[in-house]
Amino acid sequence: MERRFGELNPPQRLLMGPGPSNVDPRILRAMATPVIGHLDPAFLSIMDETMGWLREVYETRNHHTVPISATGSAGVEAMMVNLLEPGDDVVVGIIGYFGQRMADVASRTGANVRVIEAPLGEAIPPERFEEELRRKPAKLVALVHAETSTGAEQEIAPVAEIAHRYGALIAIDCVTSLGGMPVRVDEWGVDAAASCSQKCLGAPPGLSPVTFSPRAMEVITGRKSKCQSWYLDVNLLFAYWGDGKANNRVFHHTGPITMIYAMREALRIALEEGLEARYARHRKAHEAFAAGLEAMGLTLFTKGKRLPMLNVINIPEGIDDLAVRRRLLEQNIEISGGFGPLAGRVWRVGLMGVNANPAPVITLLGALEQALVEQGYRCERGAAVAAARAVYKQST
Amino acid sequence: MERRFGELNPPQRLLMGPGPSNVDPRILRAMATPVIGHLDPAFLSIMDETMGWLREVYETRNHHTVPISATGSAGVEAMMVNLLEPGDDVVVGIIGYFGQRMADVASRTGANVRVIEAPLGEAIPPERFEEELRRKPAKLVALVHAETSTGAEQEIAPVAEIAHRYGALIAIDCVTSLGGMPVRVDEWGVDAAASCSQKCLGAPPGLSPVTFSPRAMEVITGRKSKCQSWYLDVNLLFAYWGDGKANNRVFHHTGPITMIYAMREALRIALEEGLEARYARHRKAHEAFAAGLEAMGLTLFTKGKRLPMLNVINIPEGIDDLAVRRRLLEQNIEISGGFGPLAGRVWRVGLMGVNANPAPVITLLGALEQALVEQGYRCERGAAVAAARAVYKQST
Repeated sequence: MERRFGELNPPQRLLMGPGPSNVDPRILRAMATPVIGHLDPAFLSIMDETMGWLREVYETRNHHTVPISATGSAGVEAMMVNLLEPGDDVVVGIIGYFGQRMADVASRTGANVRVIEAPLGEAIPPERFEEELRRKPAKLVALVHAETSTGAEQEIAPVAEIAHRYGALIAIDCVTSLGGMPVRVDEWGVDAAASCSQKCLGAPPGLSPVTFSPRAMEVITGRKSKCQSWYLDVNLLFAYWGDGKANNRVFHHTGPITMIYAMREALRIALEEGLEARYARHRKAHEAFAAGLEAMGLTLFTKGKRLPMLNVINIPEGIDDLAVRRRLLEQNIEISGGFGPLAGRVWRVGLMGVNANPAPVITLLGALEQALVEQGYRCERGAAVAAARAVYKQST
Repeated sequence: MERRFGELNPPQRLLMGPGPSNVDPRILRAMATPVIGHLDPAFLSIMDETMGWLREVYETRNHHTVPISATGSAGVEAMMVNLLEPGDDVVVGIIGYFGQRMADVASRTGANVRVIEAPLGEAIPPERFEEELRRKPAKLVALVHAETSTGAEQEIAPVAEIAHRYGALIAIDCVTSLGGMPVRVDEWGVDAAASCSQKCLGAPPGLSPVTFSPRAMEVITGRKSKCQSWYLDVNLLFAYWGDGKANNRVFHHTGPITMIYAMREALRIALEEGLEARYARHRKAHEAFAAGLEAMGLTLFTKGKRLPMLNVINIPEGIDDLAVRRRLLEQNIEISGGFGPLAGRVWRVGLMGVNANPAPVITLLGALEQALVEQGYRCERGAAVAAARAVYKQST
C-alpha cells in the first residue's frame, strides 16, 4: 500500500465543547452493523421503532416525528421552508447566534421576517412576543430554546400560549436541549421542533430529529406553493417515513441507514436510562461543574436561566483564550471559544450525554485549573475538584 | 432492560438493488472510530485529505470538491439552488425518473425549466441540446449521467461541448456512476457534478460528493440573490471546508464526522485499487451477469448504452414480479423492482462496489434461476452460472 493512503487514526479526545460530544461505545458498535436496503421490510420496522422512540424523547404524540437525513441546521431549515411561503409574516426571537441564523434561514423563504432581540446571555420576556403580535399578526413565531452561543434558556411554554392566542404557530430550535433537559412538545404546545444527533442524544452528528404537530401539518399540506426545497419537503418525506394512514412507503431519498442505526441506539440508551433521570444527571453535572468554577474564582457569563449542558465561562482578565485551549487540547480535552462578539471573551463547555458524569467534569476542572495557573492565574489548588466532588456526594 | 428496547439486529442481506450496496467491512470498522470535533485540527486534516482523494475520484483539479452533509438527492439540489436564480433558463435532459426529479428540483428555484426527453431506456442525442440552445440560450444544462431507473448512460462530453459553445454551464447527476465507471469531470468539461456515498463508492448512504468548476464558482459567488437554501449554500459551505485561499475555517454546520470517516475510507479503498481497475471490475461483473441472463433467456431493457453497475431486466411474460423478489429476499438477496411506468415490467440489479465481483454475480444468477423455475419458467438449469463463470475465466 502506498504511504499516501494512511490509516484513519484520529486522536482520542474528551469532547467538552458544544458538540459533537463523545459517543457512547454502544452507538459506535451499532454503526458497524451491516447495511440493509432503505425499503427492506426489516428497515421499515426500524424506522417505525425509531419514530416511536423519538416521540417519547420529544414527549409528543405527533405522528410526524422523524430524524431528517442531514445535520441539525437542516432540521431548522426544514421547519422554515415548510411552514413559510413568500409574503408570510414570521416573528423570530434572537438571543444569540443561532437565533440570528434562524432569521437568515427564514428570510431566504421570501417571508417577512420581524425580529425580537434580547442582550446576549439573556432571554426574551414572553410579553414582548405578545406586544409584537398585537401590533401585527404573524403566521409563525420561531425561537431558540437553548442558545448554544450564550448558554441561555428561553422558556417556551408561555411564548407558545401567546403565539396560539394570536393565531400563530410556534417552531423551536432545541438542537442543544433535546435529551439533556425537558423538551415537552405537547405540554408546551409546540408546533414544530428541530434538534440534532450529536449533543445530548450522544450520537455522531448527521441527523436532525424533527417533529410537527397536526396543526403544523395542516398548514404544510395546505400550502399554496411547493416547498422551495425538494430534499426537505415534509410532504414527500412522510410519504417515505409513513403518513400514519396508508401502509405503503414511497421512495423519496435513500435513508442514511447507518446514521439511523446510531439514532435508534441513542434513543434506546436515553429511554433505558429514563428521561427524568437523564435530565437530573445533566443538571447534576452542571451543578458540580459550576461549583468547581466558583471555587476556582471563575464566573458564568449567562445572566438568565442557565442551560445545564452548555456552560459559558467568562475568561478572566489577562488570560490568553487560545493558549488555554491549546494546552487542554494537548491533553486531548476539547472546549470551545466564543462566537462573534463573544470571541476571546468566553469559553463554552458542554456537559452532554456520556460527559454529563463525574469523571469528565472532574477531569476538565483539574486540567482547566492547571492551564490557568500556568498562565499566572491565582486560585486555591484543588478547590475546584473538591467542590465538584462535594456536589456529587450530596443526595440527588 | 425492558423487552421493548430490543437490540439492533437486522438481517444480513446481499444488496443487489440500486443501492445502498453492501459496505466494505473496512468502512464499517472506520465508522466505529471515536468522534472528534468538527473544528479539531486533526479533523481539518482529515477534511483536506478527503477533498484531495475525492478530486482524484472525480478526475478533477476543482478545489471546490467536497462531500455534502446529506444524501445524493441533496447534492443534486445543491447544484440547482446554487447555480440557478429566479428567472434563469435551464435545460434539463430527462431519460427517466431522476431526470424528472432534477426538473422538479430546478423548478423550485423559480428558474424557467425547459426539458428535453428521450424514451425510457434510451439517451438523448447531443444534437437535441444544440437545437434547443440555438433556439434560445440558457444559463445551465443539467442532465443525468447514469439513469438508475432505466439503466441507460447519457454521454456527457459532447453535451458539455455544446453547452459551453452556447455559453451555458453543465451540471450532471452522477449518483450511480461515480466510482464504478469514468466520471472525467475535467476532461469532459463538467461544471458541477453530484453523487452519493452508497453506490459504487460502497459506503453507507448519507453523503453527497459534489464538485464545482472555477467557472461554476464564479457564477455562484456573483449571484444577485442569496441562495434559497442556507444549508446547501456553497459560499457558506466552503468557508468551512476551506476556499483554497484563506487558511481559516469558519463554522457553518457541524460536519457529520463519522460519515466523513466512512467516505475517507471508501475513497482510500477506491484509490488503492486504482480507478481504471475498478471501472474494469464493474464492467466485467456486468458482462458476466449479462451473459448469465442471456443463457437463462432473459433480456435487458436498456436499448442505448448500458450502465455496468445497474442492470435493468425485462420480467418474462407470466412471471410474478413480487413473488420472485420475495423468494430472493427469503434467501437474504435484495434486488429492486421498476419505477413508475416500469413497475412490474422490470427488475433492477446493482453490481456496485464489493458486489461487482464473481461471488455475488454467481450467487444472484443461481438464486434468480431457481426462483424463476419455481414459477414455471423454463430454461436450461445451470446455464446462467456457467456462462458467467466463462466470462470470468476469459482474460480481462
